[in-house]
Amino acid sequence: MFLYGQRSVTERLKTNPQSIQRIYVLEEVRRPDIVKLARAKHVFVEFISKGKLLYLARDVHAQGVIAEVSDFVYQEFDEVLGREHKRIIIFLDRITDPVNLGAILRICACFGGCAVVLPKFESVEVNDTVVKVSCGAENHVPVSMVTNLSSAIEQAKDAGYWIGAAVVEEGVNPRKVKFNFPLGFVFGSEGEGIRPGLLKHVDYRLTVPMKGAQLSFNVATSVGIFCYEALNQKIYDKIK
Amino acid sequence: MFLYGQRSVTERLKTNPQSIQRIYVLEEVRRPDIVKLARAKHVFVEFISKGKLLYLARDVHAQGVIAEVSDFVYQEFDEVLGREHKRIIIFLDRITDPVNLGAILRICACFGGCAVVLPKFESVEVNDTVVKVSCGAENHVPVSMVTNLSSAIEQAKDAGYWIGAAVVEEGVNPRKVKFNFPLGFVFGSEGEGIRPGLLKHVDYRLTVPMKGAQLSFNVATSVGIFCYEALNQKIYDKIK
Repeated sequence: MFLYGQRSVTERLKTNPQSIQRIYVLEEVRRPDIVKLARAKHVFVEFISKGKLLYLARDVHAQGVIAEVSDFVYQEFDEVLGREHKRIIIFLDRITDPVNLGAILRICACFGGCAVVLPKFESVEVNDTVVKVSCGAENHVPVSMVTNLSSAIEQAKDAGYWIGAAVVEEGVNPRKVKFNFPLGFVFGSEGEGIRPGLLKHVDYRLTVPMKGAQLSFNVATSVGIFCYEALNQKIYDKIK
Repeated sequence: MFLYGQRSVTERLKTNPQSIQRIYVLEEVRRPDIVKLARAKHVFVEFISKGKLLYLARDVHAQGVIAEVSDFVYQEFDEVLGREHKRIIIFLDRITDPVNLGAILRICACFGGCAVVLPKFESVEVNDTVVKVSCGAENHVPVSMVTNLSSAIEQAKDAGYWIGAAVVEEGVNPRKVKFNFPLGFVFGSEGEGIRPGLLKHVDYRLTVPMKGAQLSFNVATSVGIFCYEALNQKIYDKIK
């Protein structure tokens, strides 16, 4: 797997250098900042020509820096559930667009205290595009891959979690709900929403109120708003 | 200018068919839904080969449908300010990524009651990529282009607006602010933030609280969170 661009590569060097096999730097650019950091972390740097960079980066805007890294390591869902400090768990039902997953990881990393769960089938994985968009966030957010999302949600409920789900219509404004914790949210694909089988586990059906056009929020926008609301209720509203 | 894909073209046909010169539909696909709507709106449809579609759409995923449309029509900023129902105004300082502007337009269209202001220089315009990402939102959100963003913000303040700005550090959690209305928000570019000259107009310095990694929220994520907070305070918190 490849990481493209200065931010993704720098963040990986800082947080998880063992996962980097090699860094390629465009010889015209040389990037002393990255080269210095790489050497400090004992990561091999190779200077390459523009031709080789274009070959490796294809059409991705790489800012002259690429890292070859091990495949993303998923976390066991049991471990996520078993943590002492319970994370807000984001269950993603059939999200197929890597740009959306990358944006969601970035949001989760910024807020902190979140984890992401993907089903093994009909879903994007943490691939090159995801880590490009996430700007290094993949180093900070536990992501689990489960065979059956419905069972995973049930398992979370058995572990004491409350579950909210984003529905397009007729849900309650998250602002009007007093959330119980630990808390998880389910988000569906933009075309098709959440599968009805998953909705039966849900404690809160939630809809961000819209007074505007009959369009729908992008899934990453919804994740940002829900996490903002939940974390305010969990932490910040209690601080005067 | 071209619109790509089913959602963008359908939304434009519904809201502003006069701006469409012609719709191209891949002959293998034929899209009877779009063709029927186009005929009802008296818009000319041309069936084209895969070769011509690829030529027109380049690498854009077009779902077999492209519309050739007039350039985007910006709204005079004076008109936005002069409206009886005051909109939340989103001032964007040097946003250069069209994907971010498209995402922001989509968020504004969903919430309703927002307007966007761009400076003429060092900023992205409403181009093909923006309208592709915005999924038809450009038909619902007034966008103004001004020569000087600082003067525009001053003008808004003279018209009674209160101004909040997204700052990376040391701002107040928007949740903890009682906003006055009418209200505008200023957002800066991800690399460089808001120019100091603009910050002097600002009533509220705002930061979404982060407990996670030292990354920053994508600008569209911030717009979503700020608008959610402001619209709840303006409208929904008052409804029991």
